[in-house]
Amino acid sequence: MDIIDRLRAVTTATLTTQMFKRGFRNVYMQGVRRLGTGHGTMVGPATTLRYIPSREDIDRLEAFADPSHPQRRAIEHTPPGHVLVEDCRGDTSAACGGEILLTRLQVRGVAGMVSDGPVRDAGPVAALAMPVFCAGAAAPLNLVAHHAVAIDEPIGCGGVAVYPGDMIVGDADGVVVIPRHLAEEVSRDALEQERLEQYLLQQIADGAALPGTYPPDAATRAAYETWRRERFGD
Amino acid sequence: MDIIDRLRAVTTATLTTQMFKRGFRNVYMQGVRRLGTGHGTMVGPATTLRYIPSREDIDRLEAFADPSHPQRRAIEHTPPGHVLVEDCRGDTSAACGGEILLTRLQVRGVAGMVSDGPVRDAGPVAALAMPVFCAGAAAPLNLVAHHAVAIDEPIGCGGVAVYPGDMIVGDADGVVVIPRHLAEEVSRDALEQERLEQYLLQQIADGAALPGTYPPDAATRAAYETWRRERFGD
Amino acid sequence: MDIIDRLRAVTTATLTTQMFKRGFRNVYMQGVRRLGTGHGTMVGPATTLRYIPSREDIDRLEAFADPSHPQRRAIEHTPPGHVLVEDCRGDTSAACGGEILLTRLQVRGVAGMVSDGPVRDAGPVAALAMPVFCAGAAAPLNLVAHHAVAIDEPIGCGGVAVYPGDMIVGDADGVVVIPRHLAEEVSRDALEQERLEQYLLQQIADGAALPGTYPPDAATRAAYETWRRERFGD
Amino acid sequence: MDIIDRLRAVTTATLTTQMFKRGFRNVYMQGVRRLGTGHGTMVGPATTLRYIPSREDIDRLEAFADPSHPQRRAIEHTPPGHVLVEDCRGDTSAACGGEILLTRLQVRGVAGMVSDGPVRDAGPVAALAMPVFCAGAAAPLNLVAHHAVAIDEPIGCGGVAVYPGDMIVGDADGVVVIPRHLAEEVSRDALEQERLEQYLLQQIADGAALPGTYPPDAATRAAYETWRRERFGD
Amino acid sequence: MDIIDRLRAVTTATLTTQMFKRGFRNVYMQGVRRLGTGHGTMVGPATTLRYIPSREDIDRLEAFADPSHPQRRAIEHTPPGHVLVEDCRGDTSAACGGEILLTRLQVRGVAGMVSDGPVRDAGPVAALAMPVFCAGAAAPLNLVAHHAVAIDEPIGCGGVAVYPGDMIVGDADGVVVIPRHLAEEVSRDALEQERLEQYLLQQIADGAALPGTYPPDAATRAAYETWRRERFGD
Amino acid sequence: MDIIDRLRAVTTATLTTQMFKRGFRNVYMQGVRRLGTGHGTMVGPATTLRYIPSREDIDRLEAFADPSHPQRRAIEHTPPGHVLVEDCRGDTSAACGGEILLTRLQVRGVAGMVSDGPVRDAGPVAALAMPVFCAGAAAPLNLVAHHAVAIDEPIGCGGVAVYPGDMIVGDADGVVVIPRHLAEEVSRDALEQERLEQYLLQQIADGAALPGTYPPDAATRAAYETWRRERFGD
Repeated sequence: MDIIDRLRAVTTATLTTQMFKRGFRNVYMQGVRRLGTGHGTMVGPATTLRYIPSREDIDRLEAFADPSHPQRRAIEHTPPGHVLVEDCRGDTSAACGGEILLTRLQVRGVAGMVSDGPVRDAGPVAALAMPVFCAGAAAPLNLVAHHAVAIDEPIGCGGVAVYPGDMIVGDADGVVVIPRHLAEEVSRDALEQERLEQYLLQQIADGAALPGTYPPDAATRAAYETWRRERFGD
Repeated sequence: MDIIDRLRAVTTATLTTQMFKRGFRNVYMQGVRRLGTGHGTMVGPATTLRYIPSREDIDRLEAFADPSHPQRRAIEHTPPGHVLVEDCRGDTSAACGGEILLTRLQVRGVAGMVSDGPVRDAGPVAALAMPVFCAGAAAPLNLVAHHAVAIDEPIGCGGVAVYPGDMIVGDADGVVVIPRHLAEEVSRDALEQERLEQYLLQQIADGAALPGTYPPDAATRAAYETWRRERFGD
Repeated sequence: MDIIDRLRAVTTATLTTQMFKRGFRNVYMQGVRRLGTGHGTMVGPATTLRYIPSREDIDRLEAFADPSHPQRRAIEHTPPGHVLVEDCRGDTSAACGGEILLTRLQVRGVAGMVSDGPVRDAGPVAALAMPVFCAGAAAPLNLVAHHAVAIDEPIGCGGVAVYPGDMIVGDADGVVVIPRHLAEEVSRDALEQERLEQYLLQQIADGAALPGTYPPDAATRAAYETWRRERFGD
Repeated sequence: MDIIDRLRAVTTATLTTQMFKRGFRNVYMQGVRRLGTGHGTMVGPATTLRYIPSREDIDRLEAFADPSHPQRRAIEHTPPGHVLVEDCRGDTSAACGGEILLTRLQVRGVAGMVSDGPVRDAGPVAALAMPVFCAGAAAPLNLVAHHAVAIDEPIGCGGVAVYPGDMIVGDADGVVVIPRHLAEEVSRDALEQERLEQYLLQQIADGAALPGTYPPDAATRAAYETWRRERFGD
Repeated sequence: MDIIDRLRAVTTATLTTQMFKRGFRNVYMQGVRRLGTGHGTMVGPATTLRYIPSREDIDRLEAFADPSHPQRRAIEHTPPGHVLVEDCRGDTSAACGGEILLTRLQVRGVAGMVSDGPVRDAGPVAALAMPVFCAGAAAPLNLVAHHAVAIDEPIGCGGVAVYPGDMIVGDADGVVVIPRHLAEEVSRDALEQERLEQYLLQQIADGAALPGTYPPDAATRAAYETWRRERFGD
Repeated sequence: MDIIDRLRAVTTATLTTQMFKRGFRNVYMQGVRRLGTGHGTMVGPATTLRYIPSREDIDRLEAFADPSHPQRRAIEHTPPGHVLVEDCRGDTSAACGGEILLTRLQVRGVAGMVSDGPVRDAGPVAALAMPVFCAGAAAPLNLVAHHAVAIDEPIGCGGVAVYPGDMIVGDADGVVVIPRHLAEEVSRDALEQERLEQYLLQQIADGAALPGTYPPDAATRAAYETWRRERFGD
C-alpha cells in the first residue's frame, strides 16, 4: 500500500488524532462538507486556487473570454489525481463553480474539489462520480463575490493552511489537511490505529465495557495483536 | 411556452447570471433551502406575509381565534399558482408554519411557500407535493418569536427585496427573485442560455477542454446553433 | 400509556405549544438536529455531561487511560432508558464523541444521545439504532476543544437549561426539554392535542378552510369528539 | 411628574425589571448602542420607518429627488418630542442616515433617533445635542443596502416589536421599548424602584452586606421608607 | 516582587507570548473587554461562578430572597484580592450584574470582575475603582437569560478554561488566564521579556530598523544587558 | 490640491456616494474601525500583506529570526506615505501586530495601517501619531492564528478587494478603497460634493426643510454656486 491507498483506508477522524499526537490541533476544515452521499474517501495532493472579493469593473462576464483567467486555468491545470482546493474566504453568498467546470475536472481525472464556499447546480454536482466538498449550494455566479487571483499559492480553506502538495483527505466527517512531509508516517500510523479501533469496536459491539477496552489495556492489546496477525498477516 | 413554463425549464443558477448581466447582484435568498428532494422547479408570483418580533401580551394562542389574523388570512388569501413568501427576519428560533397550514396551502393550489425562518413538522412538510423553501426545521410555534402583521406589502426575505407579484423561482440551489417587469425577457434569455449550456456540458462531458468551449468561441457557437435548430427547431 | 409512551406518540412541535401555554418559551434546543433518518421519536430522562474548553497540558490522549475520566464514565454511567445530554457550549469545531462510545451507549440500552456539539464517524453513527441528536459532523477529537468536567450537574444544551431527570424528547424537528415535574400533565395534554390535530389535518386535507377548522369552532370540536370516541374509545 | 419626566429619571435596567415582573422578557434592543457620551436619558413615543433590502434598479440616487421618498418624509414627519425608530433588519453594512438628516431631526425638536443599522458621519452625529442610538458607524449610503418603504407601521428593531406610539427609552445601557398602554404604570413603579435602589446602593457603598439589604428585608425596607419620606416627601 | 506584582508590571500581550512558548495557544478570552479606561492592570486568582440558561418557573425575582442564591453568594464569597470570573456562555442578551452587586464586590476588596456576558448600569460600573471586564452593556436583568448554578467549579469564560485559583490578568487588550502552577515562572519570564521589549521599543522609536533589533541579535542583546543592569540593577 | 490633499479633505461617506454613482457598491471595509480618536483623515496608496492560517510546525517564535519573514519585511518595505493593508481573513482571535512594529512603521513615515484583524498593545498603539484601523484589540501574538505569506499581492480586507496602489482613505466612519485609476476623478467630484453638503448642512442647521434643500433644487443650487464662488473662488 502506498500513501494514497493507506489514506483511503482510514477516516478523517483517525487522521485528526494522529495529527493531534504530533502537536497539530488545526487540521480540519470548518464549514466544509461533502455534497452527495455515494462517494468513498477522497485523497490527493492539493492544487490551490485563491479568490479575493470581486470588484464591479473587473469581474464582468467578459472576463471569462480570457483563457488565462485563473478560475478557468485552475480547472485545466490541476493534475489528474490531485484535489483542487479553493479559498473562498468562507463567503457563502456566491458559488465557486458549477456543473460544467466540475464535470471538466472529473473528465480530466482530478481526484476531487474542496472549497469553503458553495457550488451552484448542486443537484447534478452531487451526482458526479468525483467527490465535491464545499459549503453547500448557492445559485449566484462567482463574479458576484469572488475574483480568482492566483493558482498554486499557499491559501487558507475552512480555517486551515493549505500548501500546494499537502495531502487532502475527505469523507463523511469532512476534510483534513496533512502536510506533505508528514503524509508517509501519518498514513502508516493512521492505518494501524484504524485496525485497532476496528477490533475495539467489535469488542464494544459484542458487549465489552469501556474500561480495559477503550483505551485498550495490556490484555486487550495482546488479543488485538493476535487478531491483527490473523487478519492482516503483517 | 409562457413565462412560467420557461422559468420552470431553467435553473436558478442561470437566472442569477441573466440578472447579473442586467446589473442585479442581489437576487438570491441567503439561508433559504428546499425541504425535501422530490420536487421540480417551483415558479410563481409572490404573495407576501410580514412578521415582526412577537410581544408577550399580544401573541397568545387566543390570537388565532380571530379568522382575520394575518398569518391565517395569508393562507386563505394566496391565489392558486402563487408562491407565499414570508419575511421572518432570518430568525431561525421558531417556526413560521407547520403541516396543517402548509397542507391547506397545497389544497388551495398554491405553487409553494418560501420563508427565511424554519418550519415545524418538517418531516411531513418535506413529503408534501407542494415545494417548501425555508431555513430548516424548528419545533417552536411562531408566537414564541413572530407576530404576523401584514399581507401584500413589500418585504425582505433572505436578504432580497420581494415586491408582491415578483416572480419567485426555486430549485435545489435555492430561491431567486425576478422583478415582475423583467420576468418576460429574463425567462427568454435564460431559456436560451440553458440550452447553450446543456450543449456545452455535453461537449465537456465528451472531453472538450474549456478554452474554446466554455465560454464558446465562434466555432463552438456555430456548432451549437446547428444542434439547437435540430433539437428545438426554433 | 405511561409518560414515556405518551411522549413517544406526540411531536416536539406539539410539546412546545403545551409548554408555551404554561409560560415556557425556551424549551427547544437551537442548532441540534437528528443525525440520520430512520429513527422514531426519542424519549427518556436526562443524564448530563458538562464540558469546558480544553487546556493543552491537561487534555492529552493519556487522560483517557484513567477510567474515571468523566467522558468515559458518562458512557458507562447513563442508565438504560435515559438520554445522555452533553453541554459542548455550542462549539462546533470538534466532536463530542464517535462510533465506539456511541455503540457502547447503544449496547447499554441508553435511549439516545444529545449534544450541542458535533460527532465524528458521522456516517456509521447515523446508522446506529440508537438516535443521536447533535450539531452535525466534525472529525477532530474532543480534546482539541473540550474537557469533560462533570456528570449529573444542571447544564445548558442548545440554549436550554437541562436538569438531570428532565424529560428529553427528539424527532425530525429537533429536541425539546420537559421539566420532570411537568412531564405527566404535559404528556397527557400533548397527546390530546395531537389527536385533535390529527383530526383537523384530515379535515384540511379533505378541503376544509381554516376558519372554523383551525382553530376548531364548536361544530368542528363536536365532530372531533365523536371521531375521537370512535377512534380511541376514551 | 408626567410619564416622560418619570421615564427620564429611571434607567433602562430598572425598566427591564419592571417589564419582567409583568411577563415581558423581550423589551431591550440587541446590538443598539448610544453614539457619543454627553447625553441624558432619551424618552419619547415612537414614530417608525421601515426598510427592506434595496434593489439595483429602484434604489438609485435619483430616488431622493422625490420629496415623498419615505426616508426623507420620515425626517419631516416625526413629531417634535417623538423618537424616530428605524428598522434596518440589523444589517450593519450601510448607514441608515447621516449628519444632514439627523441635524434636520434635531432642528425639528425630535427627541432622538434609534436604528438597528449604523449611521455615517458618526463623528459629527455623536456630537449632536439630540441622542442617537444605532449599530455604530458605516460610511456607505443607505441605498447600497436599504430601501425605505413605509412610515408608521409596526416594525422590529434590534429584535423587539415597536408599535407607533410605544414609549422608547435610551441610556448608556441601550434602548428599551414600553408598550404605550403600560407606560403610565411602568413609569410609576420604575421611579419607585429607582429610589429604593438609590438608597440600597448607598447602604452597600457604606459597607452593608447583601443579605438583608439587597433584596431588602423588613428592617431595611422600613429604614428606606423613612429615608424616602424625608428625601422626596411623598 | 511577588507573582502579583510582576503580573501587574507586564501586559497580557507579553503573557500570551510566554504561554505560547510553553505550548499554550488558548489563554485569551475572546469577546471580553475592559469597561472604562481609568484602571491599571487587574491581577488576582479566580473565583468562579457558573450560569446555565434560565427557566421561566425557577428564575423569578423571588429567587433572590434566598441569601444562598449562588449569584448573591458569589458576591459575598469571593475573597479580597481575587477576581470573580462568571461563565455566561458568551450570551450577550442579558446582564450578569449591575451597579449594586459590583459596588459590593469593590467594598469587599475584590480585585475585579470578569464575565463573557454584559453588565447593566454600564455607566456607573465603568466609573468604579474596581476594574470590570465583560461583553459590554445590556439592560436586561440576568434572570431573562441566566440561572446562577454553582460557585468554585471549573468553567469556561470567553472560550478559555478557568479553574478556581488560576491567575487572571486584564488590561486594555483584554483578559488572559495563567494556570496557577505556571504563574510563578511565567510571571518571571514575562517581566524579563517586558524589560527587553521596553528597551527594544526605545531603539525602534529612536530609528533602529527591525533587522538586528526585533528580534535582537547578539549586539542588541548585549547592549540591552548593559542597559538592564544600569536600570534595574538585577 | 493633489489627489492626496483632496482625499484628506473629504469623508469616507462622501467617497462611497461617488463610487456608488460609478457602479461600485462594495468599497467599504466591514468590521474595521479606527483605534483612538485623535487622528485626521488617513490617505495613502496601499501596500499589502497577506496572511493565511498558521501551522504549528512552521509558525514558531524562531520564525522571526529570519529577517525576510514577510510580516517583518512588510514593515521595512512599505514606502513612506503608503498605507500598509493586512488581510487577516477577518479573524479576530489574534493580533496582526503590536506597539513595536507599528512604531517602526510610524518612524518610517508610513501613512497608516489597516487590518481586518485586531492589534495588541492597543492602548499605546491608539496613542501613536500614525492612524491604525483594525478589528479592535486582542492580546495573542499573530503566530497563534496567522502566517504571513506574501507582500504586494492583491488581497481582500474587510470584504473589499485591495490591489497594491489602490488609494486607501480612513476616518471615523472607517476605511474606503478607491481603485487607483479612479482616484483622480473621484477625489475631484468628492471634494465638490463635500463643499455642496457643507453648504446644505448649514442651511439645514439654520432651519431649512429637506424638500428643496436636500437634494438641492435649482434655487438652492444657484445659491450654493454663489456661496461657493465667494468661499473657494474656483
